[in-house]
Amino acid sequence: MNTTLENLELLRNAMKINNIGAYIVPGTDPHASEYIADCWKEREWISGFNGSAGTAVVTLSNAGLWTDSRYFLQAANQLKNSGYELMKDGLPQTPNIVSWLAATLNKGEKVAVNPQMFSYNAYQKLKAELEFNSLCLVSIDLISDIWTDRPAIPKNPCFVYDIAYAGQSTTEKLAAVRAELAKAHANVFVISSLDDVAWLFNIRGNDVDFNPLTIAYAVVEENNATLFIDEKKITAKVAAYLKSENIDVKPYLSICSELQKLSADKAVFIDGNKLNEQLFESIPAKCAIRNAMSPVFKLKAVKNDVEIKGTRAAMIKDGVALVKFFKWFEESVRKQEELSEIIIANKLHDFRAEQHNFIGESFETIAGYAEHGAIVHYSAKPETDKRIVAKDILLLDSGGQYFEGTTDITRTIAVGTPSIKQKNDFTLVLKGHIALATAIFPAGTRGSQLDILARKAMWNEHINYGHGTGHGVGHFLCVHEGPQNIRMEENPTVLQVGMILSNEPGLYRTNEYGIRIENLVRVEEAGNSEFGQFLKFETLTLFPIDMQMINIDLLSYKEIEWINAYHSFVYAKLIPNLSEEERVWLSKMCEPIRK
Amino acid sequence: MNTTLENLELLRNAMKINNIGAYIVPGTDPHASEYIADCWKEREWISGFNGSAGTAVVTLSNAGLWTDSRYFLQAANQLKNSGYELMKDGLPQTPNIVSWLAATLNKGEKVAVNPQMFSYNAYQKLKAELEFNSLCLVSIDLISDIWTDRPAIPKNPCFVYDIAYAGQSTTEKLAAVRAELAKAHANVFVISSLDDVAWLFNIRGNDVDFNPLTIAYAVVEENNATLFIDEKKITAKVAAYLKSENIDVKPYLSICSELQKLSADKAVFIDGNKLNEQLFESIPAKCAIRNAMSPVFKLKAVKNDVEIKGTRAAMIKDGVALVKFFKWFEESVRKQEELSEIIIANKLHDFRAEQHNFIGESFETIAGYAEHGAIVHYSAKPETDKRIVAKDILLLDSGGQYFEGTTDITRTIAVGTPSIKQKNDFTLVLKGHIALATAIFPAGTRGSQLDILARKAMWNEHINYGHGTGHGVGHFLCVHEGPQNIRMEENPTVLQVGMILSNEPGLYRTNEYGIRIENLVRVEEAGNSEFGQFLKFETLTLFPIDMQMINIDLLSYKEIEWINAYHSFVYAKLIPNLSEEERVWLSKMCEPIRK
Repeated sequence: MNTTLENLELLRNAMKINNIGAYIVPGTDPHASEYIADCWKEREWISGFNGSAGTAVVTLSNAGLWTDSRYFLQAANQLKNSGYELMKDGLPQTPNIVSWLAATLNKGEKVAVNPQMFSYNAYQKLKAELEFNSLCLVSIDLISDIWTDRPAIPKNPCFVYDIAYAGQSTTEKLAAVRAELAKAHANVFVISSLDDVAWLFNIRGNDVDFNPLTIAYAVVEENNATLFIDEKKITAKVAAYLKSENIDVKPYLSICSELQKLSADKAVFIDGNKLNEQLFESIPAKCAIRNAMSPVFKLKAVKNDVEIKGTRAAMIKDGVALVKFFKWFEESVRKQEELSEIIIANKLHDFRAEQHNFIGESFETIAGYAEHGAIVHYSAKPETDKRIVAKDILLLDSGGQYFEGTTDITRTIAVGTPSIKQKNDFTLVLKGHIALATAIFPAGTRGSQLDILARKAMWNEHINYGHGTGHGVGHFLCVHEGPQNIRMEENPTVLQVGMILSNEPGLYRTNEYGIRIENLVRVEEAGNSEFGQFLKFETLTLFPIDMQMINIDLLSYKEIEWINAYHSFVYAKLIPNLSEEERVWLSKMCEPIRK
Repeated sequence: MNTTLENLELLRNAMKINNIGAYIVPGTDPHASEYIADCWKEREWISGFNGSAGTAVVTLSNAGLWTDSRYFLQAANQLKNSGYELMKDGLPQTPNIVSWLAATLNKGEKVAVNPQMFSYNAYQKLKAELEFNSLCLVSIDLISDIWTDRPAIPKNPCFVYDIAYAGQSTTEKLAAVRAELAKAHANVFVISSLDDVAWLFNIRGNDVDFNPLTIAYAVVEENNATLFIDEKKITAKVAAYLKSENIDVKPYLSICSELQKLSADKAVFIDGNKLNEQLFESIPAKCAIRNAMSPVFKLKAVKNDVEIKGTRAAMIKDGVALVKFFKWFEESVRKQEELSEIIIANKLHDFRAEQHNFIGESFETIAGYAEHGAIVHYSAKPETDKRIVAKDILLLDSGGQYFEGTTDITRTIAVGTPSIKQKNDFTLVLKGHIALATAIFPAGTRGSQLDILARKAMWNEHINYGHGTGHGVGHFLCVHEGPQNIRMEENPTVLQVGMILSNEPGLYRTNEYGIRIENLVRVEEAGNSEFGQFLKFETLTLFPIDMQMINIDLLSYKEIEWINAYHSFVYAKLIPNLSEEERVWLSKMCEPIRK
């Protein structure tokens, strides 16, 4: 394996041959995925930095790696002697990539990217910004030829996701998508998101971490639909299924040449935030383009009744696993057994794995003990793993993939006796969580309008948290799914009945501790009046909140009422699947509180 | 004067000669103004409909007038025998203008508009939508030649707005604008908003109702600034002032020919939401265009210390006028004197006019008694004027233009004994008003994030209101000013220290009554913490809220505390300017309440 310096030299040679002034390597893949298969980790190969967010920019004499504050430490370590300067994104003194290029290159020089790794919209934005600075953008893949030991694209078998779990057939889904295409006056829809493909065709796979996805593209036309996928991944059962749904299958890499064959009278629908620039460039220039949000993205966000029922079943399994885990944890702390962040994350995985239809975790467990809880995207590595003893507090954010649905839950618990400050902070987070959980709002409301409910109690104390309050959740798909969310940032998506979101306010004291309380909620009807339709949330997640952590004086009677009702609901839902000992334990956790 | 049918025939003849399939006449002017001078009331001339919102669309055989629910009744009356069909905007069965045109015209037909009456952005949007439906858009003024008795463009003298009130010289303002132009890589800025012109050049006028504006355009370049204004409006004093500030003056109508002379290497900054299409078409096609929000629009939204001080002084004057008015009103009701919506609106004007430096009302007073209070943009006309007696409730929304600043206040008062339902509704509105008035939020927050605070208490009862919660307010300028506001709808503008907004939740029971409580607030600093800078509001408006209207059981102790503190502040601020009798009256109104 080459060193980063050697790889850099290979790239610079290729740049010289092609008369390229700068090459930008983002940490993305051709499908705009959250989890990237090894074959597409170009940014890691060229820079040595393997964080989830970061962009390498290479000129003939300089190289910079832009990443955000989560990765400043890791990047500084990994970039030692790499030839890269660490560019700390978000700091006022850090130039953005385009300004840096404008200051580094001469006017008229070429900046190049691999068009597979940029969405059409991101590419157009970059192009406009570079042109504003008298630079030009070109599409060229300089890495493939020089990355000689590049891993192959994953070819794990895919499988049919039974309609007993999916609730809707591909034929029905295709009809809904085609109705949306007709509204947009489009004839052809090119799909590149792996979860859009999985949902639409009711197939799943195992090609990337944590998400049950198979690598494929798809094209939907008025009268036919084609899956672009490596034939090695198609079992006989899948082949028969696809045939029964009238889905054509073509080789994964043939999508570009197939798009090139489209006739000029076709109007092509693309989701420019997802479709990669290479596919876009394959569409004949004479075709009309309808660039808007993917109809699959919108349709799959609204869960059908079978999916909701499945999710409720998955929540019971997850709750049972968590009861077993936290009971074990409490006893192990008491017995002073050796515990660490990694040990408990593994143990939690084992308890989930005991549940029927558990496929895997829905993301890497965040077990943040004491000051590690304040690192928002922390996950314990052997070199950071912290021993857990009977003091401080523990933040545990985890989730499971079950055939019935995807879960995501965070609990923050007192391992020892919490301080007044910890209890006050926890109670502010809890107040925000309850305010959002109990919100009533008119149909048409967006998540950004509700976000303040989760923050208001904190804002009154001049406290805030730097992440979103809620993300959409897929159904046996990605734990982070759009288009809906609840954030300070605007998102035009309206919350609709059937959408599932997380409710996860937090509070982080750097070098001290972190607090987050997360349940999943479903949007449901609240009723109609002369002022229109109103909506509310149903909390889906089933596990008690640690009452040792609250300062009850800060809670209103209505908030206490919500806590007691939630705990009584959790208890009723979980006990049928618990042993007598576990019931006793849960009953204690769910005891009503009062002022 | 012609009838509408005669005018329609003249237009259709002109359309035939020019081979135009449809002509769209919006209710706008070349300056994107809220209040339109008579010379630009083309929509009224061609349709007979004179509401503030509405668009006429004329084909050779059909004519439609689109307006919203506020004007359904008025439009139905005014459009009788006009040849127009009333198109009720906002109803599901009403097609939008473009869909209607697509269904009415043949493919390829021409749709025309007067390019003076469309902003560049609105024109581009319309053009794209028409083209999507195989129609094309052309710019042509067909009205001017056929509207033979068209009024002249107003030529009232303008005057210098003294720096003692403005707080910042034109030279300073121009420097700030030029700094923004440099950031945008622009050489020339074309300004068409009348209030942008007035603020930048510290001049005011009297050409339109309610807003102290003078009709003019302006062009700011790196080294010079030109005011395009009719020379008859420039007094010797104004001429000397403009000379002293190095402002060139050119004839109002010469702006197009001057823009045509721009050299091709100039980058021209425009605010496409404001600049009319005719001016845009005058800019040579080779010039680069920077289309973004007007820097003047952004700069004038943040009030300087002199403006804030002036506004506080204006609030005292307005509060004193309101004390005199409401005291008179209470006594007149008690004495059973003849009162009506128009009588009290006139009386209120008279009390304001007694105040020094009062120039006029900042908008047409809304005196909505009983069921009229539920009509959101009601203003009493002789044919609707309602007699007021000692029962029901009165909504009174009014404001003044003083040299020191612009005011806008709504109070809803019990004229008789309010019902339980009225009191509960009022209390919900008040809870919303207080929640917004007491909000604490991090720097960077947008109005759309805060809007829910004013609605949450209502939403819990499945109640809502159909207007924004807060609008920006100009300084001796337009009472509705952007870019900031507080609405359910997204607006990317961040609230900044020094911005002034209204806080005006409402609740409307059709055919029963309307409730609104409106104060103006200023954004100010709340403090800094490890989580950043936090902001809050200072309430500027000085007049008590009617405590006969509250249901105290619905208020929290904190809300009661806010009311008592506000009333004690109002009392202290106003008494120096009141007679003994008025003090006694106000003291009763400001008495502390308790549970």
